[in-house]
This record gives sequence, structure tokens and C-alpha cells, in this order.
Amino acid sequence: MKKIAVIMGSDSDLPVVQKAIDVLDEYDIPYEVHVYSAHRTPEQARDFSLNARKNGFGAIIAAAGKAAHLAGALAANSTLPVIGIPVKSSTLDGLDALLSTVQMPSGIPVATVAIDGAANAALLAIEILAVSDPVLASKLDKAREEAAQKVLEKDRGMADRF
Amino acid sequence: MKKIAVIMGSDSDLPVVQKAIDVLDEYDIPYEVHVYSAHRTPEQARDFSLNARKNGFGAIIAAAGKAAHLAGALAANSTLPVIGIPVKSSTLDGLDALLSTVQMPSGIPVATVAIDGAANAALLAIEILAVSDPVLASKLDKAREEAAQKVLEKDRGMADRF
Amino acid sequence: MKKIAVIMGSDSDLPVVQKAIDVLDEYDIPYEVHVYSAHRTPEQARDFSLNARKNGFGAIIAAAGKAAHLAGALAANSTLPVIGIPVKSSTLDGLDALLSTVQMPSGIPVATVAIDGAANAALLAIEILAVSDPVLASKLDKAREEAAQKVLEKDRGMADRF
Amino acid sequence: MKKIAVIMGSDSDLPVVQKAIDVLDEYDIPYEVHVYSAHRTPEQARDFSLNARKNGFGAIIAAAGKAAHLAGALAANSTLPVIGIPVKSSTLDGLDALLSTVQMPSGIPVATVAIDGAANAALLAIEILAVSDPVLASKLDKAREEAAQKVLEKDRGMADRF
Amino acid sequence: MKKIAVIMGSDSDLPVVQKAIDVLDEYDIPYEVHVYSAHRTPEQARDFSLNARKNGFGAIIAAAGKAAHLAGALAANSTLPVIGIPVKSSTLDGLDALLSTVQMPSGIPVATVAIDGAANAALLAIEILAVSDPVLASKLDKAREEAAQKVLEKDRGMADRF
Amino acid sequence: MKKIAVIMGSDSDLPVVQKAIDVLDEYDIPYEVHVYSAHRTPEQARDFSLNARKNGFGAIIAAAGKAAHLAGALAANSTLPVIGIPVKSSTLDGLDALLSTVQMPSGIPVATVAIDGAANAALLAIEILAVSDPVLASKLDKAREEAAQKVLEKDRGMADRF
Amino acid sequence: MKKIAVIMGSDSDLPVVQKAIDVLDEYDIPYEVHVYSAHRTPEQARDFSLNARKNGFGAIIAAAGKAAHLAGALAANSTLPVIGIPVKSSTLDGLDALLSTVQMPSGIPVATVAIDGAANAALLAIEILAVSDPVLASKLDKAREEAAQKVLEKDRGMADRF
Amino acid sequence: MKKIAVIMGSDSDLPVVQKAIDVLDEYDIPYEVHVYSAHRTPEQARDFSLNARKNGFGAIIAAAGKAAHLAGALAANSTLPVIGIPVKSSTLDGLDALLSTVQMPSGIPVATVAIDGAANAALLAIEILAVSDPVLASKLDKAREEAAQKVLEKDRGMADRF
Repeated sequence: MKKIAVIMGSDSDLPVVQKAIDVLDEYDIPYEVHVYSAHRTPEQARDFSLNARKNGFGAIIAAAGKAAHLAGALAANSTLPVIGIPVKSSTLDGLDALLSTVQMPSGIPVATVAIDGAANAALLAIEILAVSDPVLASKLDKAREEAAQKVLEKDRGMADRF
Repeated sequence: MKKIAVIMGSDSDLPVVQKAIDVLDEYDIPYEVHVYSAHRTPEQARDFSLNARKNGFGAIIAAAGKAAHLAGALAANSTLPVIGIPVKSSTLDGLDALLSTVQMPSGIPVATVAIDGAANAALLAIEILAVSDPVLASKLDKAREEAAQKVLEKDRGMADRF
Repeated sequence: MKKIAVIMGSDSDLPVVQKAIDVLDEYDIPYEVHVYSAHRTPEQARDFSLNARKNGFGAIIAAAGKAAHLAGALAANSTLPVIGIPVKSSTLDGLDALLSTVQMPSGIPVATVAIDGAANAALLAIEILAVSDPVLASKLDKAREEAAQKVLEKDRGMADRF
Repeated sequence: MKKIAVIMGSDSDLPVVQKAIDVLDEYDIPYEVHVYSAHRTPEQARDFSLNARKNGFGAIIAAAGKAAHLAGALAANSTLPVIGIPVKSSTLDGLDALLSTVQMPSGIPVATVAIDGAANAALLAIEILAVSDPVLASKLDKAREEAAQKVLEKDRGMADRF
Repeated sequence: MKKIAVIMGSDSDLPVVQKAIDVLDEYDIPYEVHVYSAHRTPEQARDFSLNARKNGFGAIIAAAGKAAHLAGALAANSTLPVIGIPVKSSTLDGLDALLSTVQMPSGIPVATVAIDGAANAALLAIEILAVSDPVLASKLDKAREEAAQKVLEKDRGMADRF
Repeated sequence: MKKIAVIMGSDSDLPVVQKAIDVLDEYDIPYEVHVYSAHRTPEQARDFSLNARKNGFGAIIAAAGKAAHLAGALAANSTLPVIGIPVKSSTLDGLDALLSTVQMPSGIPVATVAIDGAANAALLAIEILAVSDPVLASKLDKAREEAAQKVLEKDRGMADRF
Repeated sequence: MKKIAVIMGSDSDLPVVQKAIDVLDEYDIPYEVHVYSAHRTPEQARDFSLNARKNGFGAIIAAAGKAAHLAGALAANSTLPVIGIPVKSSTLDGLDALLSTVQMPSGIPVATVAIDGAANAALLAIEILAVSDPVLASKLDKAREEAAQKVLEKDRGMADRF
Repeated sequence: MKKIAVIMGSDSDLPVVQKAIDVLDEYDIPYEVHVYSAHRTPEQARDFSLNARKNGFGAIIAAAGKAAHLAGALAANSTLPVIGIPVKSSTLDGLDALLSTVQMPSGIPVATVAIDGAANAALLAIEILAVSDPVLASKLDKAREEAAQKVLEKDRGMADRF
């Protein structure tokens, strides 16, 4: 199975990114976690991205805050699907990171998820792998059903309460 | 090869969506184009999405404006990758469609591209198919090189001019 | 008397939604409280909405955060008045939920109240029932007078203080 | 049948408001159209609102731009459902009118529709009347079906085209 | 000397408004403090405003949050200068109150100060009285000089520190 | 009678500012019009402001776009009431000018009107002069009545039309 | 004298960037103009930036729209001052480009000017060269005086007109 | 070596500004720290700026919040590079200060860094000095390498952890 790369721009993003890692663990997806900065270690970010496909990766998740260039910088050097997680920082409620991640120019897509939406980034990566992996697709469908059951349970709890 | 679904919430979105169709044509990707509205034809949107994987689709592109629920509604009924194109409408410069598309709750990802970013939506869909298709991956890489050459040509033109 | 449906997208919205329930209790309006998610339990949300009128409901209140599609999804399947409460979540101060709830396409209205404005959602539902119920209308008028009296008392307190 | 009041803050809002009038005509709903300004003719706005219920109105639609106080001012003097249409003006893309209309304080609800969403304002008013009028409710349902058919036709057209 | 009216939409605004009262006390300006709500006590707000000039007021300060209509409602009924203080509430960081206060239609001005800018609202009211009161103008000038001296002291402290 | 100063940061602001001049003409208020830039001619702006009171001015109107510092710079050098008109420029719809004008620090108020709200800036200046001038106050009241009559006429026209 | 680099992300940015070139011409500053894209030609952008200092450049001006990463990408590979021009594109009025350019992480500064503020970008670059070049500094001061004279002329024209 | 001026609009900005001072200390750059307010001590701000070049300064850093005019006011009186730090205050998340600082009119540039981005302001000032100081340029390059090493260390730590 192809691996998923989980890249964060700073180790301070780990509390957000951890939710992506947890989802990948839950689905037994092989992955690597890296701290590469589009600005502080551009060479390493570039090299990782340039070689990601041949190194067995199927998708790249990139989390960054503020002028969040990381996902775009990785996407510039790979035609693997790159998934961007805009990270909320201390100002502007994450709008800066969202716009810096999603408003990519024509030719270089970044698949952007919600601000701090790390769990969804991992799920999207798994959905991408599942396009050619029916067993994984079934796991995703099953998890959806279980999530629905949890909501329905909470609905029943509400009915008891009111 | 798996097909790509291109769904728009209203036929008035076609001028934006056409760029996605052009890219799919360019890469000889099989696709279907539909007008399904999350609000006006929720049943058809749901049925399409529920059956998309077994009907041979590998990814779903959804374009909608304003309170752009279409991508989310399709994602709610499929674990295929769903790619959302927020469409700018007559007010608010597309921020409403962007937030309605990208800020999905945990569990149901939508891969959001830029406002009116239809070409990138198609490229992202092709990147997703290319994860398990090395020939397609090569085509993507080659197109990137050609795009780079075009920029370099323009750079040389600039050098001549100034 | 017709019932009011109070639907929330996640049970984490209950602290906000509770204020709507309190107002309904205050006016002795019959109601049901449910947790249905537009994305995690789309079938249940749809079924509830499709049958709400014939099940005796007069209006539907829907509370959701982020890409808040719940009110719109319910409105897509019913011509009952649907009242949307945008819920503030951890990022963007509720602007995402507001725009996702209010910017509905032509044909499918959602009556949107303020971010976290649950009490007003309930009052609006009661105002809707009161259109054909003069006794309920009188109760609303009386409550307005009492609210005015409370403000005037506070005004007198201010006069004493300064 | 109860009448619908359609109030605009300035006659320059008529091009937006006309769509509400057209919908009311389509459904044969009796209505009155007025130009009352919350700021320039506060007395008339107040008097209209205070007497609206006893004058046979079932709901009030109010359209205004910029610091759009009209809906709130009418709501302050009536417990009829008041529906607010934020009107886009020459600056700020309608965000000012949206926030001025929707962010009402607890106790005085305004049912806000999309920026320039006049057709939905009329439909919401009709939905409110239909709560106690099954014939009108059937008309609304039928119109929804017809709107769905139109979307499906466009979908078939798309299938022919691509 | 003419009095200044200090009106707040809710007594919960007092912590913000207190700074205005403190400034008025500092300058020995006569004032009245009231709680009038544009929505909950529209009659009292109107009556106060209609009679404010003949009751000896020279300017009206109005503080309100969210869809902050209070300043506009008072301005609609008086040609005294009305000064609006947009109050930050629990969502949207005060942008809603700012836009609701400042974006007034032509004909009915509101002199808007910064979000939560109560001290400046009082200073502006005093500046207005000082237009025809040279002694008061001198006091304002002197206070400016003292404020400048405080900044210069802090500047010297900084020089000592670094 | 005291004069009103009308200052614009650039002569390109004249189309907006003209509406203020027209209102001053309408009320026969003496005024001076200047082009002073807070950034390009800071000395002249400062000197004008420092001497405005002794030169017979009663209020200063300042119009500027983008990082609109003009009103604040004038307010820094005078305790006359300074009225700021944020001017919409080619980007950001005037939000930059609005925030730069209104968000003044404590101690230095600027009475801010709506984006491009030049007519209201003049009316506010006249209201300020009218605090100590009952004849002018009567003129303002009369103009309000006339404006109300115009709205009522339009209301009657609407009644004829629908 | 050191050269200034003027880099744009796409040749469609030239109409904006031309104003920077004009200013450099006016001051007889040597410069090079390039089209390098952070995403389409990341290698060329990197190589240019890595070698800019040793190739005789004193500052780099970078113009880009949407998720404007160009200035940041150049700054990541050089400790020369990098000046960013956020370019307004077809959506969001340039706010996306502004935030993507200015919100840089600690360690990698970008000197950001106004949206479409190309003339100021050039002036800032010249100010940087002038820090160690008193003749150039004098030229800048002289140009400021001339600009002030032009404003004063316009002020006199205004005095004639009103 | 030329000195760097560090000016803050209020001593309450010191916690933000301290990071700039720390960076200047780290690089042994001579500097002065001042509290000058564009609004409360405009004369001192002007005099400092007018004389900064001849007093041996090479660049001016200015930090201010809300309607942050300080950087612009200093830039109006000097052709030295002026670097603006928008400071987040209690409302609006710093967007007001950012727009007030960056949206400068043509002719008077301000080099704006991120909201609260004081460390980058100092680095930018040092980059400016380093344009004509190869030893300083080497120090900057070395610090970049060290920062990269720290990121790589964290990357290795991540590899150990996952």
C-alpha cells in the first residue's frame, strides 16, 4: 500500500496534526511524519516532494499557519495529490492560512480542508488511496455507518432527555 | 479507467465549470457532466453520489455558489474523493461559497480548490486517478514541464522587452 | 397546536440550542429535539424533513456550525418554514456558519437568525404559529411588554446610580 | 387570506424587491407595497408595524441596504414574523446590510434571507401562511416539484451536450 | 451648559460605557445615563430623542452591540449630533456593530467612534460642546498636552531601559 | 457663523467630497475646501489643523481612502470635532479606509461616517454648529420633514403602482 | 550601483508591475524584470533568489496574486530585502494576496506594500539602496518635495474653484 | 554602523516590540527605542523622523495597533525605509492595524510585516543594513542555516516519535 506523507511547517502544529495521524493509525495506513518549512527548509521540502511518488507515497498532507505556503510549495514539485490543512494561529482566526492554502493558481491544485481540519485531511488521503483499493473503500463506508450510528444514539439520548 | 463526475448546482455555473471539462478532455479522461442541486434536486444528487463508486467513478467534482452545499451533500453519500469548486456569485466575492464548501465537519472531507478554480479541480481529480496509474502520472509531469517552459518563454520575452 | 422541531447537527451544539428549548417551554409549545447531521445522517435528516408537515410540525429550527448545511438540507425537503441558527465554532467567529446558512439559492429559503441566536429562533417559530393563533399572539405581545418593563427598570436603576 | 407587507427602505431598492412581488403574484397572495424608511420616516414605519396584525397582515418583508435597520425597526413594533432582505449597495458587497439585519438582539427576531434574496423572502412569507393553509402548502410543494423538473431537464441537456 | 445623554442598549454594555461617564465626570459635564433599547423599548428611545434638544441636551452618545441600531434610531428622531459606540459582543469581534452603526443612509448621520471606544465618544461630545465654549476648548487642549507629557515620560522611561 | 473645513487627501476624492460641499451650500454654511495629504503634505495638514479653531472653523471634515490617516492626523492637532469620510478605492471596497479612520486610539476621537458618506459628513458638521444655533437647528428639522415627505410621496407612488 | 530585481508570478501581472518599472526608470536604477512562478517554475525562482546577492542585486520586488507565495518563496532563499506586492485578482479584492504575502512566519520577512502598490514597492527598494547612498537619498527627498508641491498646487486650484 | 529606530505608539505595545529588540541585540545592531504616538505626540514623532537620517539611523521600525498611523506618519517625514508592525488589539484580530499600516498611498511606502511580527521587522531592518555590509549579510545567512538545522532536528525528533 502507498504511504501518506504528513508534513507540518513547524512542530508547534503537532497538536492539530495529531488528529490526522490518529486517523491514519485507525485505518492502518503506512505514513511518515515530517517537519519541513517552506521558508526555513525549502530544500528539504522540495526534495521530499520531488521524490515522494517514487518513494512510495500516494498523497501528501501539509499543515501550516499564517501565510501558509507549505502545501503550495510541495504541490509545486509533485503531481501527487497534496492536501492542505490551514492552521489557525494567534491572529485572524485562520482566514490567512485558509486563503494562502486554497487560492492556488491554475495548474497547481491543493486539496484544502477546513481550518484545523486534520482528521478530514487524513480521511481524504485515505479516500484517495481507496479509489483503487476496494477493501479500503469498504472500511471507509463502514466507518461512515458507525459514525451515523453514534449520531443516532445521541439522537435517542436527546429524545429521552426532552 | 475510472470516470470523473462533474456536477454543477445550476447550469449558470457552466462558464466556470467548462474549464474543468476542457482539462479532462485534454487528458482524455472519461467523464459525465450533470446539473444536480443539493436543494432543488436533493434526491438525484443523493442517488448519483450513493452509486458513483459502483458506477465506475473515481472522483466527483462539485461546483456551486453562495451557500454552496453541493460538494458537502455529495460527500455525505459517498466515500469517493469529492472536490469542491466554490463559485463566485453576485455578492460577497465568493467568500460565502468558499466557507460553505471548505469548512466541513470532521468525518466528511471535501477537497476544496480556489474560488472559480475549475481547472485545478480537474487536475486534482486526474492526480487522484494517477496515484495508481503511472502513465497518467507521467502525462501530468510532462504538462507541468510544458507549463514551466511557457513561463520561461514569457520570462525571456520580458528580458527582451526591458 | 402544531409542534416545533428543534434539530441540531451535533450534540455539542446543545448549550446553544438549549436557549431555544427554554423559550418553547416558557410558551408551552410542543416540540421534539433531534440530533441529525446533514453529513453524517443525511437519510434521517431527509426523512424527518420530508414527513415533518404530516407529522404535525409547524416549523423546523436547525442549528449547525462551520459549513452549516443542516438548515438548507432540511429546507430542501420541506416547504415548512425552516429557521437556521448559525453556531459559532472554534474558528472564524461564526461567519462561516452564518454565510452557509443564510446565502441560500432562490427557491429554498432559510429564515436565518443571529449567530448563536437560539432564543430568537424559538421566538420566530412561535411568531409563525401565532399568525393563525390570536391567543399565542397575545402571549407574545405580553412578553414584549414585560421585556420592555425590565429594560425600563434597569433604566430607573441607572438614573439612581448616576 | 392574510396579506403580506412588502416594505422597502428606499424606492431605489425596487429592482431587488420586484422579485418578491413577482413571487407573491405567482401565488395569488394579497399584499401591500410600501416605502418606509427606519430613519427618514420612523413614525410611518412604526405605525404600520404596530397595526399590521390587526390590519390583516400575516408577515412583513423588509428590504434595506447598508446599516439596514428597517427589518429590526419593524420587528421592534410587531410580533408578526418579520423577514429581512439585506440589499447590496455600492460598498462592502452587502456584508453591512447582512450583519445589520441578522445580528438582532435576543427577544426581537428577524428572519433573514440571502443578500438580495427577495424571491426567497416572498417564498418564506408564503411558507408561513401555508402553515395553517394546506392548499397553499400543496402549491408550494408542487412548485418545488416543477423547479426540480426544470433542473432535471437542464441535466438532460447537459448529457446531450457532453 | 448643555447636557450629554449617554444611552446604552442594554445594561450589560455598562462596563464599556463607564469609560464615557468617567470622561464626562473628569470634565464636569452634566449628563444623564439611560438604558433604552431600539428594539425592546422603541417608544422610550424615540421619545427621549424627539425631546432631547428641548430638554437641554447638546449631544447623544449611544452604545450598542451586534445589529447596533440604537444610535441610528436616536438619530432618526433628532438633529442633535448622535455619537455611536459599536460594542463588541461574543461573536464577530464587533464588526457587526461597527457596520450597523456607521453605514447610515444619506440624511441621517451617526458620528461613529472605534469599537468599544467609549472614552472617545465622550471626548467627541465635549469637543462638540466646546465649539461654542472657549473655556471648555482650553480644557481639552490642556488635557491633550498632559496626555502628550505622559507619553513623553514613557519615552524617557524607555530610554532609561534600553 | 463658524466655518467648516473640507479637506481631502487627494483631488481624486473630489467626486465623493462634492456631495458634502453641496450640502454646505444648501444650508449657506461658510466653508473652505483644501487638498492636504497626511503623507505628502504633512506640514500643511498640521498647520491647518493647529490653527483651525482660531481661524474661525467649527468643525473639520476629512476624506481619504486606503490607509486613511488624514482625519486622524488632523484630529491629532486640534480639539475641534473632526469628521472622517472613508473613501472607497479600487481594492477592498472601502473597508481599509473605514478601519483606518474609525479605530482611533483613546484620546483622539474621529467622528466617522459611512464609506463615501460625504453628505452625512456635512450634515453632521451642521448639526454640530446647530448645537448653539437654534435657527440652524430649525433648518435641519425642516429638511428632515421635507425628506420624510419625499419618502411618503414615493410610498404613495408605490401604492398606485401595485 | 546595486540592481533591483522585479519578479512577477505571471506576465498577466505586468500592468500592475509596470508602475514599479516606471519608478525605477525615473530614478535611473538598474534592474532586471523576470517572470518566475513560485509554483510553475520553482527551480528558476529559487536559483534566482539564491544567487541574487552575488549577482549584484540589492533588493527583490515580487508581485503575485491569490495565494501569493512568490515573495515568500524568494525570501526563503535569500537574505536580501524582499518586497512583496499583493496583486488583486478576480475574486476577494486582493485580501487573499495581501494575507499570503504579509503573514510570513518568524525568521523570513517580506516587506509588504499595498494591494497593487507597485510604485511604492519600487520606492521602497530605492529607499533601501539610499541607506548607503546619500545622492540617491537626496533624489528621494527632492521627489517628495515635488510631490508636495503638486498637492499644494491642487490645493490652490481648489481654493480658486470654491 | 547605522542605528535602527524602534518606535512604538504606546508602551503597552512593548511585549510585542520586545521581540524586535531581542533580535537587534542578537545581531549587535545599535538601536534606540522610543514611545511616540502619531496622535498624542505628533510633533515628537515628526521631529524624530525628519532628523532620523542625519542622526545616524538606517531604518525605522514602527509598531502600532487599531488605526495604526504611526508607521505612515513617520514615513511621511523621512525617506528612510520605514517598517510597520501592525499590533493586534482587543478587537478585530489585528486586521484594522494591518490595513491601516499596509494600504499606504502611492509615494509614501511602508514595509509592512505580519500582525505582531516584531522579530521579522528587526530582521528586515538588518537585511536592509546588510545590503551594503557583507559581514552582516553573512551573519544573516548563517542564522538562516542554524534555523534550518533546528527545523531538521525537529524533523528527526518527529521521525523517532512516529
